[in-house]
Amino acid sequence: MRRYEEKELQQEMELVEKYLSEYLRDPGYGGAVGNILRDMENSKGKRLRPRLLLMASRYGKGLDPAVRERLCRLGALVELVHMASLIHDDIVDDAPLRRGLPTTQSKYGKDMAVYAGDLILSRIVQSLFRDGFYQVGALFGDAVESMCLGELGQMECRGRDDVTVEQYLRNIYGKTAALCRLACLAGAVESGCSEEVQAQLEQLGINFGYMFQIRDDLLDFISDTEEEGKLTQMDFREGILTLPVLYAMQDQQARKRITGLLQAAREGAFGADQARDLKTIVAASGGLAKAAADMEMYAERALQAIETLPDHGVSAVFRELLQAKCKVSAAG
Amino acid sequence: MRRYEEKELQQEMELVEKYLSEYLRDPGYGGAVGNILRDMENSKGKRLRPRLLLMASRYGKGLDPAVRERLCRLGALVELVHMASLIHDDIVDDAPLRRGLPTTQSKYGKDMAVYAGDLILSRIVQSLFRDGFYQVGALFGDAVESMCLGELGQMECRGRDDVTVEQYLRNIYGKTAALCRLACLAGAVESGCSEEVQAQLEQLGINFGYMFQIRDDLLDFISDTEEEGKLTQMDFREGILTLPVLYAMQDQQARKRITGLLQAAREGAFGADQARDLKTIVAASGGLAKAAADMEMYAERALQAIETLPDHGVSAVFRELLQAKCKVSAAG
Repeated sequence: MRRYEEKELQQEMELVEKYLSEYLRDPGYGGAVGNILRDMENSKGKRLRPRLLLMASRYGKGLDPAVRERLCRLGALVELVHMASLIHDDIVDDAPLRRGLPTTQSKYGKDMAVYAGDLILSRIVQSLFRDGFYQVGALFGDAVESMCLGELGQMECRGRDDVTVEQYLRNIYGKTAALCRLACLAGAVESGCSEEVQAQLEQLGINFGYMFQIRDDLLDFISDTEEEGKLTQMDFREGILTLPVLYAMQDQQARKRITGLLQAAREGAFGADQARDLKTIVAASGGLAKAAADMEMYAERALQAIETLPDHGVSAVFRELLQAKCKVSAAG
Repeated sequence: MRRYEEKELQQEMELVEKYLSEYLRDPGYGGAVGNILRDMENSKGKRLRPRLLLMASRYGKGLDPAVRERLCRLGALVELVHMASLIHDDIVDDAPLRRGLPTTQSKYGKDMAVYAGDLILSRIVQSLFRDGFYQVGALFGDAVESMCLGELGQMECRGRDDVTVEQYLRNIYGKTAALCRLACLAGAVESGCSEEVQAQLEQLGINFGYMFQIRDDLLDFISDTEEEGKLTQMDFREGILTLPVLYAMQDQQARKRITGLLQAAREGAFGADQARDLKTIVAASGGLAKAAADMEMYAERALQAIETLPDHGVSAVFRELLQAKCKVSAAG
């Protein structure tokens, strides 16, 4: 049953790629515009969000080929939201690379990157209306709004030492959980799931998103790749306090030392020694363990949502995905 | 009849402002986000695009108050597209001021400006779906796509001396005409105009847009405000060749001298003397006169569209608007 689901999903993911190519077609303006879109098409991400959408949709009644095709199209649209947000995020982060490849802004300049992101958003809007996705269109607007607020909220928190765990959670809801929510909920709605099932899949998406972002933040914190010339604790260097650090700061002594290191980061005096110090302080004060426990709590909540769903072959695929993504030490 | 229409329009424009405030509501995240949206609300532009939409809609059958309210909401959405594009354009132009007020990016930084523009776009998408604007939603996507391509096209042309009049026209279609088209066409469709009337109003919008942008480019070229400390010929200084210059360059001798001045602009050696020279060359070679003639041609085409429309009190208001906007010397 699980194998059958995986094979089906694989076939559908190929259709998602086909639609992505269609949406990222060169408008024929010559020059850099077409190159940017081609880069996007070739960026071969993990396509996690369309996969979530297609998996969620299997709890619905839409196994008719025409409905499956519509769901693949919708999966491509969710991935496009992710792509547009990456382009705009890279402008803000001034990031030179993403997944080892130059970012749009570093290759073509910030100006081109602003419009390339907007162009992708415009194609999403065109398709949502022309293909009649009236039931889920507003959810796309909600996700983009949340993503903006998450990024804006994170910018507000940058460099400050009085950030709360609540603010952190609010920011990562926008940065990551909102789009995972969209993927699962849109898949549920468009495939005709009952409202009850929709609500469970929505919870699955949200909790998966929290787990996924906390994992990402843990990896940034603990990964030990300095020998490869890659900096660790990029978040902290940029003045962003993530969950392990925020938990560590609940201890007054740790707080004092971390505040000093944050000051060093502000002054550009955060090197390998400081990174080691920070890791030691955060581990000793239990910040790492607490953050890892939270990650597991969100994974557990996502699993609970799966258990309440009608039994289906895709449930095992969901469980496996959750288990794979919840591992930090192995991946780090 | 004209006075009656103007009074009605004035009342509706007040409702547009009310909806704008609603769309620009503070998401309650504290900090700069709310300030950016408040600045937008207080930016008191001319609201030309909602005005075009409401004027166009009077040729339809929607005089029922509920329909008028929907049209005001749609007018606000068209203005929001304009606002979002201004925010993103200012990032690219690095502009410190707009209409005498600091731009979002100069006040809050480029990073905030990227997301503030995206946030406005997300609110547009939410409303287009939640308020059921299914007939015109895709047109919003088309306009945003055209606007991106216009700006990207202009960037491609920047600093080059082989730009053609066709490329210029294609760029200003995206920069200005596409949104005027959206305003008139969406007003026509949503108010239930016949397809024939829709097509005429679409032409009215497109030609109005071309006229409006050529006028803007002429004003930038001929306005004489150096004594106020404001630079003239900003387009040329930034390496953008507008219609008067492109026509002047059809004369080989003028072309040679203008290419030299463009080189000076590239090297940052374009001062008051060069600006005076450029103006003299472009005037002497007939570039100014040809561009002004084109502007009048587009105004004439817009007028022709009005004449083919069913007779209506708003026609006189349209004619007056066209005449007011087609004057360059008085406004300059």
